Amino acid sequence: MTSFDSLWNSILDVGQHHSTRGYRRFAWSDADLTLREWFRGEAQKRSMDVEEDRNGNLWAWWMPDGWVGDPTGAFVTGSHLDSVPDGGAFDGPLGVVSAFAAVDILRVKGVVPSIPVAVTAFSDEEGARFGVACVGSQLTTGALTAERALGLRDADGITLAEAMTRAGRTTAHLGADENLVSRVGVYVELHVEQGRALDRIDKPIAVASSIWPHGRWEFTFTGEANHAGATRLVDRRDPMLAFASSVHSARSAAASHEAVATFGKLRVLPNGANAIPSKIKAWLDARAADEETLTKLVTQIESEARGHSDLDGIGLAVFAESTTPIVEFPSEPREKLRRALSHLGDVPVLPTAAGHDAGILSTKVPTAMLFVRNPTGVSHSPDEFADPVDCDIGAQALADVMTDWVTA
Amino acid sequence: MTSFDSLWNSILDVGQHHSTRGYRRFAWSDADLTLREWFRGEAQKRSMDVEEDRNGNLWAWWMPDGWVGDPTGAFVTGSHLDSVPDGGAFDGPLGVVSAFAAVDILRVKGVVPSIPVAVTAFSDEEGARFGVACVGSQLTTGALTAERALGLRDADGITLAEAMTRAGRTTAHLGADENLVSRVGVYVELHVEQGRALDRIDKPIAVASSIWPHGRWEFTFTGEANHAGATRLVDRRDPMLAFASSVHSARSAAASHEAVATFGKLRVLPNGANAIPSKIKAWLDARAADEETLTKLVTQIESEARGHSDLDGIGLAVFAESTTPIVEFPSEPREKLRRALSHLGDVPVLPTAAGHDAGILSTKVPTAMLFVRNPTGVSHSPDEFADPVDCDIGAQALADVMTDWVTA
Repeated sequence: MTSFDSLWNSILDVGQHHSTRGYRRFAWSDADLTLREWFRGEAQKRSMDVEEDRNGNLWAWWMPDGWVGDPTGAFVTGSHLDSVPDGGAFDGPLGVVSAFAAVDILRVKGVVPSIPVAVTAFSDEEGARFGVACVGSQLTTGALTAERALGLRDADGITLAEAMTRAGRTTAHLGADENLVSRVGVYVELHVEQGRALDRIDKPIAVASSIWPHGRWEFTFTGEANHAGATRLVDRRDPMLAFASSVHSARSAAASHEAVATFGKLRVLPNGANAIPSKIKAWLDARAADEETLTKLVTQIESEARGHSDLDGIGLAVFAESTTPIVEFPSEPREKLRRALSHLGDVPVLPTAAGHDAGILSTKVPTAMLFVRNPTGVSHSPDEFADPVDCDIGAQALADVMTDWVTA
Repeated sequence: MTSFDSLWNSILDVGQHHSTRGYRRFAWSDADLTLREWFRGEAQKRSMDVEEDRNGNLWAWWMPDGWVGDPTGAFVTGSHLDSVPDGGAFDGPLGVVSAFAAVDILRVKGVVPSIPVAVTAFSDEEGARFGVACVGSQLTTGALTAERALGLRDADGITLAEAMTRAGRTTAHLGADENLVSRVGVYVELHVEQGRALDRIDKPIAVASSIWPHGRWEFTFTGEANHAGATRLVDRRDPMLAFASSVHSARSAAASHEAVATFGKLRVLPNGANAIPSKIKAWLDARAADEETLTKLVTQIESEARGHSDLDGIGLAVFAESTTPIVEFPSEPREKLRRALSHLGDVPVLPTAAGHDAGILSTKVPTAMLFVRNPTGVSHSPDEFADPVDCDIGAQALADVMTDWVTA
């Protein structure tokens, strides 16, 4: 019996939409601020010092008795608390809740760490509000500049700078944080699996081998608004047709490259039932097993979209909103995790096509990931699910890994 | 020199978006309330009694001297003041401004009407906010029930009842208004043309023959939200593909029926860049020369959309949000208009595929329409335009028609 359940239940209501049952925990929204307060409270209950770093990421420190000076070589574990629109309960929070639960397990067992331990919640991992994913970890590692981050706008035109200011945060010191990064000995992120690989092999947990390279591209199809009734077909420059053809181009190209490509977010202007659209912004999410394939995939989709657009006199602009290179998680921490979990048998090693803060941090510090089985594979949906038994196995496994690491 | 220019310029700023330059004059929004105040002010300047009827339509009455009792047999002219999202300046307001300008022309000339005259602005013609067009005129004629109208919701979930209440209106008496309808002798609506027929024949104005039957159908494609990266193509139920195919089905079907069909408004859920959509709501606007063709057109599009959906395991629900039968404007008032305008030569007679309040009212009272040339044909767009010279010809023509009618 761990503290997992009570921790888990304490945030289930936060940011859940009454009708869809999906979560809307967007960066710096009220729901996000409530979760940040929850994090602070849980840390304080455990006498862990809480720090919100210059980029809005949360750190709760458990320092060895008698430690003097700044932490170094810390075992850091956590994930994120924000969600996609109408997302599930597990993507992100499972890692933060499991991290606190793992601390509790060590304390119940009387494990005394010889190195610092930190539980983290990285800010704005999903990028649901401002369009760029992993904003907190990207700022801290210097992958994203403060200037670009502060100018990002949400759908209402509110900048990240304004949103942080409204939330009472100062934005003057955003940016790379080498001092903080230098404290991290290893970052281990536990996450619900976002596919069905574990279900297919009937295992409760896995460690990560790699993250597929991936990115988001904003396609803007520009035509001419006009009356949907009175404008003859031959007089139209309707960007919906070229967009529609591009949806199929993306699917076919993804299939032929054994990759994935998705147009899942759209903005139609003026979006009136009796108006031909003037403009369609469509975001392409594309991922492939290696960078060369990803480049080929996106090049092909863009080229075909341009062909469709040219046919109808539609303008097309394509902007790479974010791209993330392949992450190969280092073998040393991975094998250390597998050894610490050998009592569970041969722990499987899996790649993932989902991005994570662990991928961002891997450019600066050793990182590893643990995945918890997702029996349906559904993620980024209210139907996302993990079995409570598997969640408990996950928290226990994280505690075993933590114990192995901090008492070595 | 008429009063058209100063009237026209006095509303040019209202509801214009600073970046798109398009108009966002949605029913019961601040912009709409400002325009209602403007209407009231212009009527008062002309000593016309203003009445906002039980359904929110505005009437400014010019009664013959010594008239006793309620108006009957009135010459009513006007249009609407609301707009589509990022619409143009002319669609609607041109008719209202021309109506006031025509009253001024008669007064300058000293024309004394022997029957009542009214200038009107019908409420919520475009249906941009609540999804149903011609709400004001449909309520007044009984084509739309109060119950259905009051429950219509905007994108924020606000009902029409709530929007009207916030605007200080009472909603208790919405509905058919036979007494008001019985006052109307004829309704003449002047409107910017929403096509290029007048430009092609080089004429400044035309009278209307008919309005194509038309309607809006809400197509809901339901799939399953999932992670855009981690979900294999074969595991997806992405409704975007069936929607995209349906866009092309609509275009092809429209072409083969010599009709028009447009998907111009979309709602994607959850609309996250890294999430496969769970649901796409897409509004089809379809219009054809006759009702049989329109039925065939929509049946074909729905049937093909169902085929596309079935292929991908997508659910499809189609709901007829509104349908408007063909309107054949009666020949008697039309020919009376043409005779009154015979000094302009042979005034052309044109059908239109755009819906109008005049079409709704035609079920209850004699109606006629005047169209003013649109040199680009562009409408429902910030680029909508009519030449000031043509606008002046339009206002003069309306004054000629009014003079002919009220002094007969």
